[in-house]
Amino acid sequence: MAPSFSAVFNSYYNSVGEQYPRAQRGLLTRPDLPTVLEYRTAVDEAILQGLESGSFALDQLDIVELGIHHEQQHQELILTDVLHLLSQNPLYPAYRSDLPRAEPCEVPALHWHPGAEGIQSVGHSGLNFGFDNEGPRHKILLHPHEIGSRLVNNQEFRDFIDDDGYKRPELWLAEGWALKEEQGWEAPLYWIEGEGAWQHFSLAGLGALIPSEPVSHISYFEADAYAKWSDARLPLEGEWELTAHTPQAEDNLLESGIYCPTGVASAFSSAAAFTNATSTTAASTTATSTTAARITARPSQLFGDVWEWTSSAYQAYPGYRAGPGALGEYNGKFMANQYVLRGGSCVTPRQHIRSTYRNFFPAHARWQWSGLRLARDV
Amino acid sequence: MAPSFSAVFNSYYNSVGEQYPRAQRGLLTRPDLPTVLEYRTAVDEAILQGLESGSFALDQLDIVELGIHHEQQHQELILTDVLHLLSQNPLYPAYRSDLPRAEPCEVPALHWHPGAEGIQSVGHSGLNFGFDNEGPRHKILLHPHEIGSRLVNNQEFRDFIDDDGYKRPELWLAEGWALKEEQGWEAPLYWIEGEGAWQHFSLAGLGALIPSEPVSHISYFEADAYAKWSDARLPLEGEWELTAHTPQAEDNLLESGIYCPTGVASAFSSAAAFTNATSTTAASTTATSTTAARITARPSQLFGDVWEWTSSAYQAYPGYRAGPGALGEYNGKFMANQYVLRGGSCVTPRQHIRSTYRNFFPAHARWQWSGLRLARDV
Amino acid sequence: MAPSFSAVFNSYYNSVGEQYPRAQRGLLTRPDLPTVLEYRTAVDEAILQGLESGSFALDQLDIVELGIHHEQQHQELILTDVLHLLSQNPLYPAYRSDLPRAEPCEVPALHWHPGAEGIQSVGHSGLNFGFDNEGPRHKILLHPHEIGSRLVNNQEFRDFIDDDGYKRPELWLAEGWALKEEQGWEAPLYWIEGEGAWQHFSLAGLGALIPSEPVSHISYFEADAYAKWSDARLPLEGEWELTAHTPQAEDNLLESGIYCPTGVASAFSSAAAFTNATSTTAASTTATSTTAARITARPSQLFGDVWEWTSSAYQAYPGYRAGPGALGEYNGKFMANQYVLRGGSCVTPRQHIRSTYRNFFPAHARWQWSGLRLARDV
Amino acid sequence: MAPSFSAVFNSYYNSVGEQYPRAQRGLLTRPDLPTVLEYRTAVDEAILQGLESGSFALDQLDIVELGIHHEQQHQELILTDVLHLLSQNPLYPAYRSDLPRAEPCEVPALHWHPGAEGIQSVGHSGLNFGFDNEGPRHKILLHPHEIGSRLVNNQEFRDFIDDDGYKRPELWLAEGWALKEEQGWEAPLYWIEGEGAWQHFSLAGLGALIPSEPVSHISYFEADAYAKWSDARLPLEGEWELTAHTPQAEDNLLESGIYCPTGVASAFSSAAAFTNATSTTAASTTATSTTAARITARPSQLFGDVWEWTSSAYQAYPGYRAGPGALGEYNGKFMANQYVLRGGSCVTPRQHIRSTYRNFFPAHARWQWSGLRLARDV
Repeated sequence: MAPSFSAVFNSYYNSVGEQYPRAQRGLLTRPDLPTVLEYRTAVDEAILQGLESGSFALDQLDIVELGIHHEQQHQELILTDVLHLLSQNPLYPAYRSDLPRAEPCEVPALHWHPGAEGIQSVGHSGLNFGFDNEGPRHKILLHPHEIGSRLVNNQEFRDFIDDDGYKRPELWLAEGWALKEEQGWEAPLYWIEGEGAWQHFSLAGLGALIPSEPVSHISYFEADAYAKWSDARLPLEGEWELTAHTPQAEDNLLESGIYCPTGVASAFSSAAAFTNATSTTAASTTATSTTAARITARPSQLFGDVWEWTSSAYQAYPGYRAGPGALGEYNGKFMANQYVLRGGSCVTPRQHIRSTYRNFFPAHARWQWSGLRLARDV
Repeated sequence: MAPSFSAVFNSYYNSVGEQYPRAQRGLLTRPDLPTVLEYRTAVDEAILQGLESGSFALDQLDIVELGIHHEQQHQELILTDVLHLLSQNPLYPAYRSDLPRAEPCEVPALHWHPGAEGIQSVGHSGLNFGFDNEGPRHKILLHPHEIGSRLVNNQEFRDFIDDDGYKRPELWLAEGWALKEEQGWEAPLYWIEGEGAWQHFSLAGLGALIPSEPVSHISYFEADAYAKWSDARLPLEGEWELTAHTPQAEDNLLESGIYCPTGVASAFSSAAAFTNATSTTAASTTATSTTAARITARPSQLFGDVWEWTSSAYQAYPGYRAGPGALGEYNGKFMANQYVLRGGSCVTPRQHIRSTYRNFFPAHARWQWSGLRLARDV
Repeated sequence: MAPSFSAVFNSYYNSVGEQYPRAQRGLLTRPDLPTVLEYRTAVDEAILQGLESGSFALDQLDIVELGIHHEQQHQELILTDVLHLLSQNPLYPAYRSDLPRAEPCEVPALHWHPGAEGIQSVGHSGLNFGFDNEGPRHKILLHPHEIGSRLVNNQEFRDFIDDDGYKRPELWLAEGWALKEEQGWEAPLYWIEGEGAWQHFSLAGLGALIPSEPVSHISYFEADAYAKWSDARLPLEGEWELTAHTPQAEDNLLESGIYCPTGVASAFSSAAAFTNATSTTAASTTATSTTAARITARPSQLFGDVWEWTSSAYQAYPGYRAGPGALGEYNGKFMANQYVLRGGSCVTPRQHIRSTYRNFFPAHARWQWSGLRLARDV
Repeated sequence: MAPSFSAVFNSYYNSVGEQYPRAQRGLLTRPDLPTVLEYRTAVDEAILQGLESGSFALDQLDIVELGIHHEQQHQELILTDVLHLLSQNPLYPAYRSDLPRAEPCEVPALHWHPGAEGIQSVGHSGLNFGFDNEGPRHKILLHPHEIGSRLVNNQEFRDFIDDDGYKRPELWLAEGWALKEEQGWEAPLYWIEGEGAWQHFSLAGLGALIPSEPVSHISYFEADAYAKWSDARLPLEGEWELTAHTPQAEDNLLESGIYCPTGVASAFSSAAAFTNATSTTAASTTATSTTAARITARPSQLFGDVWEWTSSAYQAYPGYRAGPGALGEYNGKFMANQYVLRGGSCVTPRQHIRSTYRNFFPAHARWQWSGLRLARDV
């Protein structure tokens, strides 16, 4: 249809051939809308035709399934990029003016949940869909630790700022401190200092910072500094996964309503999350007597609020092998100088959230809905 | 109406206040179309109301007149930027597919016209409108020289390339050579090497390079290197102005049809230009006996084809003083490290062309419709 | 003595105060030699006086011990930097012309040694000196794997190059590929292409590349690409440590003569290393019948040839806490975006080598004597 | 002798061949001292031998003469670079501690000298030595103007600073303002803010700023802003040359003692200069009745204090042609984006100073001994 589209739309696949230079991608004008829609329709029809006629081979079906999940990542990234672009505009335009804004609510005190210990299994089982980097399922050794019952919220992060958190080098990783100095960070991205009060820019536009909402749009460096300041640390991805994964966890998730209803929130669904959280906390309070019960008592806000930075560098699981060709370029080649985030954010498509999912970003990235949960050694 | 517009739309006026950082301007999302149109309509109405009611003071009328001429510069720059943006797209989309493409034509041989000598006057007289940098009118001393009868064309520039013009450092200014090496220049901007033949990208899209068209989209450095290769030099801006300015010159201009008819050309109006050129050349051939006649015999293609690089650094004329306030920031503060271009291009609004007009760009600029005419000492 | 020395010589300690900007450090002129020697003598005398008089408190003695080990790191880095500086000089001067050059030798075939499995202990015991990042000693879980019997050598790395190793993106991490393209890497640092043959620049000057020497001066990205090309992987730091650490390992090390005699080699002591290697290999050949014997049979070239890249991101061990003040800035704050190297190189001071030692550098670093050993899953 | 020296020591001659990359030149280690001296001695002996034996051809003698003058430029640049390097060191070491420091002195009030008008001749006559860019001698047209009787001094420049000279964009060229903001300029280079008073770093080390000394180490942008603030302008190079060139000017110069005696001064020889200045001023006071006398009355401090920025872009004189080969690369290829400075500084070799000499630097350059003299239209 349009042979040159393969270079224009090739983001990073060396095996597909030439790519448009990344740094100049913002300069790329787009084909006009009818041409794009015509192309999209042609692709959709060819895929649907293949699916309906049963003419796809098994490995082709695998690619279609992968493509659909990949498309979900784009849906999330488009909202992430839209927010970032709009934030560059000093007029602070709202993406949609009809988005419900979050209401301040009461946040339960932070409790420490005992984490799973000893030899445990993590990683995707291979049943249902998972990206290649989520497997193979394998054993890990967990040391004694505890996990925070909920996410760190804006009020707590403001306390960190007010306690000179951005001015005390001893709290920071060296690379993070240098970056902060160079970029002039004094608060999370999208916090805007107004007349005596912090404001917060979201897809709903500019509004007051809601203290009860999870802190978001912070880098790994800020998450790590906050954890040091709290005399705690970030969880390992294995610790997080064991906490999040219970027999009923993901089913519950799908019905618990902890997402922001619009799916495009500024609008972190904190209220809903804590409805859920309260009952969970209640469970953990009454069930401290047996180990089994303790492990069942899952912390709240694990899925669909903000991506949670873990302290785990993004590396291959034991036995991982990248596939051949373009599909092999999907995850494996990014396994350097990035950190794993877990859980999914309020703009992550619902079917894209699972306890084994490994999101990854460089330590400096802040434009994601990224926050943190504390952990500590015991 | 929209107070924050003054920062968003402040390109470089320090006296107006805060400016949006230039390097990030490409990231700035725009207010939506209705808001922009509403704002524009409100401005238009206020201006028209003021003009019709006669309520503007004299100095306010001066500002309105300046604003209208400034707007004409934007009209040209928008086309320049559109071409540049589209050129980043490997699909090479046309700005308008209905633009007439130039046809190859016969180019008369280059003749050398004797230039004016001795003490001469240049600069804007102050009658009618002129930008402040065009005056004051003053005397200059011109040394004996000759000016080329027409612009350098694509065929001639291809000869320069084929003679290793981009590979011989002795032809280049040191800064230009370093820049060329760093940027990998091997031809003018928008020349694209195809299978055995040069193609040319213009507002009409990609097409064959037309040998008879004036070479365009070259930097000062390339113009200077071409001139050295030709055993000649670029004209001084005073030499150019004396050549271009005759009693009937600008009136003729307005009727000569040497513009590209659409005003948005790829489409340099070479044919029309040479209709004019031929008669002029004839005149110069038959009239070499008297000085008066020689000076009258004006070279062709002086207006409305391409901006012509001169060797003159863009500096203040004797007695020039920048005005106060924002208007004073208009021209004077750019008088460093830029070079003067004369004549106007095929996308310059017709009323914006005059023999005293001083356009200016840094030596490295190539995204303008910029070409050259030779001069030489005698 | 010289109060402003504290800023001039403060490389990165925020708790000590102001620092000279890192990027401009190469522009810093030095105090003259007598001033430096006077300062050094004064420091030495004060320390010796304190030690001899017994006037240091216990925590002061800890600092002195740490300082001495820190000084050893400087000794190694000075040679690393000298080599790098000399390599910028197209005259390729030798650091010392009296250095013995390595002789080509026979390299034993690569064998695969079974690695330790299951729950194992790693990290510094706290007896004798160790840096804080080497502890606490703790348990890890190792999956079944094998470790290469020796380092990858120049001949093998040349095979990788000849098989288009630097031209096949599927072998590379994405960040490494982009860096390689940008920097134009086509071979390890200090390999210089001569007339039909590779030359190698070392502290002894320019000489023929010795095929039997361990490959050196490669980045993590090149090490990882080589491993992928070999259908293998880099070892985890825990796998390496268990391989290197046996009851007699470090004692043997001190007597085995596997260092380059001069301590400043180009001159990797390959011959000596393989004397050692041969006996070890013999042992492993004859002792495959029992697990105990297999684990005892240690691969060769573990210490004092080149630092070996592991696939482990440099992170805190479980339970690690950085100390207070300047000492706490020593190791912990660099725990982001770096990788662990193990073993020590031919310019590492002998007393500075131990099986628990964790060296660390960013993935792009090549100016170290850094090479690799393969590992693989079984 | 050392064939690779030709690349190492080739600063910018494309016709000589390969060059060491400029940006990395600071990383280049040097051949050891005996090798350098041996090379230098061999060159000296070959030249002397040729001169004494009369074996050089005439064009070879021209090259030797040019080489000697070129060497003088190096002598000046070495001191310029030494000062710059030492200034990077927070210990502020003196180049030589035995340099006499300038003493504050009384500065005569600024007078305005009428400049030459009408058609005048400038440029080197071709008698004695001159660089190619100083010729050909040619006519220029000068408009009515006046020239300041002496250089702008530190006290006056401090007044400019105190009047917010570095904070008022309307005084600055746009490129200069952006540069100043980016680099954080708040005073001339080497002015260091101490406890309530400005200090000045020179080859003699750190000392109090002497108000009576000519301001130095300023960029073209700062000179131009100061001139605008003074309701004046910089002189054109032709205006300067006509002022400086009188029949007896250069002879007087050689005997007037207006140089700093050591030739390496911090130590601008202001006192001596004003001894001279006083008599000149006296002359101008008593001789205002005739034009001839007025032109003879030369301003002071024209030679050997600081290089004086002119407003003239560095361009070719009418009829200038660069020579062939390496000699042709000497001056001509730098004729873009630089400005002419006149007069010579206190570290310029005495025989290197003449009224036609055209020094040139980019507008941002501050590491030279560069200052300014005012001019104004009348």
